[in-house]
Formats: sequence, C-alpha cells, structure tokens
Amino acid sequence: MSLIISIDAMGGDHGTDSTIPAALDCLRENSALHLIMVGDKNILEPLLKQALIDFSERLSIQHASECVAMDESPAKALRNKKDSSMRVAINLVKDGRADACVSAGNTGALMATARFVLKMIPGIDRPAIMSSMPSIYGHTHVLDLGANVDSSAENLFQFAVMGNEVVKALENTAEPKVGLLNIGEEETKGNEQVKAAAKLLENSALNYIGYVEGNSLNAGDEKVDLIVCDGFVGNIALKSIEGAAKMITSVLKESFAKNWLTKAAAIISYPVLKAIKNRIDPRLHNGASFLGLKGLVIKSHGGADSLAFKTAIHVAIVEVDKNVIQKISEQVEIALTQREKI
Amino acid sequence: MSLIISIDAMGGDHGTDSTIPAALDCLRENSALHLIMVGDKNILEPLLKQALIDFSERLSIQHASECVAMDESPAKALRNKKDSSMRVAINLVKDGRADACVSAGNTGALMATARFVLKMIPGIDRPAIMSSMPSIYGHTHVLDLGANVDSSAENLFQFAVMGNEVVKALENTAEPKVGLLNIGEEETKGNEQVKAAAKLLENSALNYIGYVEGNSLNAGDEKVDLIVCDGFVGNIALKSIEGAAKMITSVLKESFAKNWLTKAAAIISYPVLKAIKNRIDPRLHNGASFLGLKGLVIKSHGGADSLAFKTAIHVAIVEVDKNVIQKISEQVEIALTQREKI
Repeated sequence: MSLIISIDAMGGDHGTDSTIPAALDCLRENSALHLIMVGDKNILEPLLKQALIDFSERLSIQHASECVAMDESPAKALRNKKDSSMRVAINLVKDGRADACVSAGNTGALMATARFVLKMIPGIDRPAIMSSMPSIYGHTHVLDLGANVDSSAENLFQFAVMGNEVVKALENTAEPKVGLLNIGEEETKGNEQVKAAAKLLENSALNYIGYVEGNSLNAGDEKVDLIVCDGFVGNIALKSIEGAAKMITSVLKESFAKNWLTKAAAIISYPVLKAIKNRIDPRLHNGASFLGLKGLVIKSHGGADSLAFKTAIHVAIVEVDKNVIQKISEQVEIALTQREKI
Repeated sequence: MSLIISIDAMGGDHGTDSTIPAALDCLRENSALHLIMVGDKNILEPLLKQALIDFSERLSIQHASECVAMDESPAKALRNKKDSSMRVAINLVKDGRADACVSAGNTGALMATARFVLKMIPGIDRPAIMSSMPSIYGHTHVLDLGANVDSSAENLFQFAVMGNEVVKALENTAEPKVGLLNIGEEETKGNEQVKAAAKLLENSALNYIGYVEGNSLNAGDEKVDLIVCDGFVGNIALKSIEGAAKMITSVLKESFAKNWLTKAAAIISYPVLKAIKNRIDPRLHNGASFLGLKGLVIKSHGGADSLAFKTAIHVAIVEVDKNVIQKISEQVEIALTQREKI
C-alpha cells in the first residue's frame, strides 16, 4: 500500500523553516513514507539538496510558482492563485499522485480550494473541521471547529458519522463514545437543531452517549471520545479554551517572576512546570482533518513550528494508513440506507 | 436611599451554611445594608438568634415554608412551589419591600419565577444572564450565558444595551468597550444573526469595537469590557473555560504530587500557587445578573461557599446603589426611540 503525502512547503507563518525539518524528520522515522514537497523549486531545491540525495526514492519536489498569503481572501485565492503551493498540493491528491496533503496555510483558502478541487463525498452536505484537544483523560476529538455556521440536525449527524471513523482510526478504538455539545444534559435543553440531532444519533449505530457540556472538552465527569457541534459554537469553544490556557500561563509566569524568592521557586519547580507544559502542549494536538471531501486534507496551525507540523504530518499518515476516506464513504452510505428504511 | 436585599437563605448546595455567614459579613461591612433572610423560620430563627439582636434594625426573617430543589423542573417549581424561599424573596422585590434579591438556587426555576413575578422591562424581548470572568486585563463581562438559545440580532442588540449599563455601574467606567462574539474578526465571518447585530451596534450610541473571538473572554489582544453573544454560545464558552481551568489545575496538582522532589517544589512554590489561585478564583467572580426584568435578581453559583455568596450579595449592592434597573429602562427607551427615527 502506498503512503505518499504532498506537503504545502510554503504555507504557514514560518514556511519552509517549519515544513522542511518536519518533513525530513518524518522521512527518517518512517521508511514507508514518500513526501512530495510543493513550492517554488528555486527556493526548495537548495534547501533540500542533501535530502534529495539521502531520500532519493522517497522525496521529490513539485514546483508551484505562487503562494497564498495568510490573510488572502479565500475567494480570491481560489480564483487567482491556480499555481499556488496549496492548490498544487491538493491537485496531487485529486490526481491520485498523493494519498493526502498537509498545509499550514490560510484556513479559509485551504477549505475553499480543497472543496473546489476534491469535491464532496456523496451524501455529505457540508465539510467539517475536526481536531483533538488535551483533556484530563488524554484527549478529546471535536468537530466542527469552524467550517460551518448554522448547522442543521442532519449536518450534525453527518459530522458524527465522519468523526467517528477518524476517531476509530486515530485512537484504535472500536466504538468511540460520541457526545453532542449542549448547554445542559437534560432532554429539554438546547436549540432545535441540537434536539433534532440527538434523535438522529439515538437511532443510529453510533455509540451515542447523549448531551455533553462545554467542560467535557477538557475535563468532564466522564471520558468522551468525540464531541459534535456546529462550527460557530466549536470555534468559539476552542478559542475560549486557548484564551483560558493563555491567561493561566501568563498568570503563572508573572507570579513566578515576581521576586527572587518566587524566581528560586520557579527554578526548583522547573521539571514540574515543564511536565505541565508538555502535557497541554498544543503542538502535540496539531493537525485538523477536513472531513467530507473525496480526499484527505490536513490543516496545520498557521503558527506551527517544526514539531507541531510533524504532528500534523503524523495525523495524515495514520488517516492514509487506516483508509479513512474509504471508511467514511462506506459509513455514510450505510447511515443513509438505514435512514431510508426507517 | 434604601438598600434592602432579600436573600433566598435556603437556596444552593450548601443552603444556610453559605448564605448566613455571607449575609452577616455583609451586614458587618456595610452599615447602610438591610437584609431580609427568606426561608423556614423554624430553621432560620435559631441560626440567627444572636444576629437578630446585633443587627436588630437591619436584619429580619421572612418565612417561606417550601424550598425549590436544585434539580426541580422550572415549570413545576413555578406551578407548585408558591411559598418557596426563592419565590418569596422575589415577591419582596416585586412588592417594593426589597431592592434586589440574591439566590443560589436552581437557575432555571429562578429565571422562570423571576420572569413570571417581576415581568419584563418594556422594549426588552428576552431576559439574559450576565456575569464577569477573570481575564489578563482584570475581568470581562459577558452576556447571555444561557437564558436563551437562538437569539436574534435584535435580542443581541438589547443584551448589549442592558449589559452596558451594568458594566458602567460595576466598573465605574463611562464608555465600556463592547464586543460581539464571533468566529473571526473579518466582516464576512459569522452567522446571519451576528452580522445583523453588528449593523445595529455600529449605528448605536454604544462604544462598539467590533467582533471579538473566544480568546477575548480571558486573554484577547485588547481589553474588552463587555462581550455579547447568544446564550447557547455563551454558556458553552463559559463551561469550556471552566473545563480548561479544571484540567490545568488538575495537571498542576498531579505534577506537583509526583514524588518527594516535586512535593518539595510545591511547598516552596506555595505562595506563588496561592497567588495564581486567588487571581483566577471563580468565587471572586460569583454573582450573575438576570437582566431585562423589572427588578434586580442576582444568581449565585449553586455550589457557592460563603465567600462566593458574599461576592454575589456585593454585586446586588452595587447594582441597587447605581440604580441599574432604572438606567436600563431609560437606555432601552432611548435606543428604541433612536431606532424609530432612523
């Protein structure tokens, strides 16, 4: 089985500074992996000179003359940048020359381009963005994180079916626990879309455990593997958690830097503080999957360093290895067939 | 000017264990304050025996034979518990015998009862729940935190007008910075309600600064005084932040308890850890205002201890002192008159 991944080498805030070291690390660690680095060959060739010799069979460059800016409008990028590193990387997936593509570029442009080039899986109405976040139980997978606003009950149900396959692949678990994000656990709570989605999920083959609240993303009373929500809600929850973590980290730093006594305490506590940082390190949760498309696209955080970008490549590797797209297509078909029978 | 507050003495997980010490502390600290403790007089009288002598002019008991359970359905509580401590405390506000009421009871029942008894301010379509949360800049006020789902643009606009008056009162600031919670700062982002609400806010007299993202609740790039959102979104953001804080605290505890070396580090770092805890202590942000009603109702967290309950009473004191209800009514009228002119 092939394992070829195209990398948008120019995307993200750090471009090749992140993408190249991450790519080379992955090639070193996984001898089955083939990478196609997409970008301006005049920039990439000198940087990859030695690597192209070391990994002559598993590394290549695909030239792309343009680059999508991080703040470029998705519509403009789609219309005007037909030879961007992002677009060419996605084209490789579409043409079957790569099994997945990884980009740290502009999220909106990546989604618009991926949707335009790859098209949707039949039966799926809207794509969704899925990622994991750290929790007291390890981590929780969540979708949608912002591809959509105003998701219908049917959209939410489809997100659950798709997300379930990804969790099965990434976590090696047979029956992920699926929760629906709501403002209370009682049946009467929530908006109409969520209540209707709950009915669809109760009647499905998924291991649906009911409503969960916002705290379940990081620290609920019970482990949940997959949390499903509308993209407006999911994006705000994600950013709220980022803000909370930033505030606590900043208060920690400030408090430990106060005077010589607290500075001494910081030095003594260094291994502990380091362990905490590692445990909630967002770089180890990098790599969001764009689901619902006929090809695998993994979005890395724009600010990703090489460690974070490597995590995103790793997500792509597992999803290719577990044949996630094929499984999603099958499950969507099964779910829709079941629906027709009811 | 009078300053009489009715206290639902029986509400919350800890009932009189929290409400009585908090009430007595407030009476000691504020010689203008009068409190009416509402609940079963057979329980309250023995507990308040000495206090009724010490504060004979400023403390009284109002008997209420029933109590709303924390998990009781709001509709049932409203229909069947007409002599509950919660209901009687609200009745005192309605009858003009108290200027505000504070309860740690069941949120849904408190909102339903308050709305039924006090009625809405003319021009306000829906009540909202508003609270503050810690941020790197001090704190941020947010509404709605869960009174509503599916708020319209007009609802969001009304929340902003009401919240603005509360922030002015609590923060002693003339022109609070008002932000609208969204999934991006660009004009094209968001759902239809949020986009339409932005138009209303741009054309208002409020100091509207535009869209803010979830991270602005705790740690945005810029200080925001008031963040406006739909209750479904606000509640999930609030709970997500609680979960994130709980996860980080739990990782901190676990990491510091690992071995004798880390335990020693914890002892040395104790003052720092204590300072951090104080800085983000949710008890110091207790006391949510129910806005849109013709009377002041402050909701304390159900699990509040006496310090937290005291913070909630303090919110009531300031809002009475600053005449918030009157100001909201005036501003709503002004805003609606302006609207008609346009």
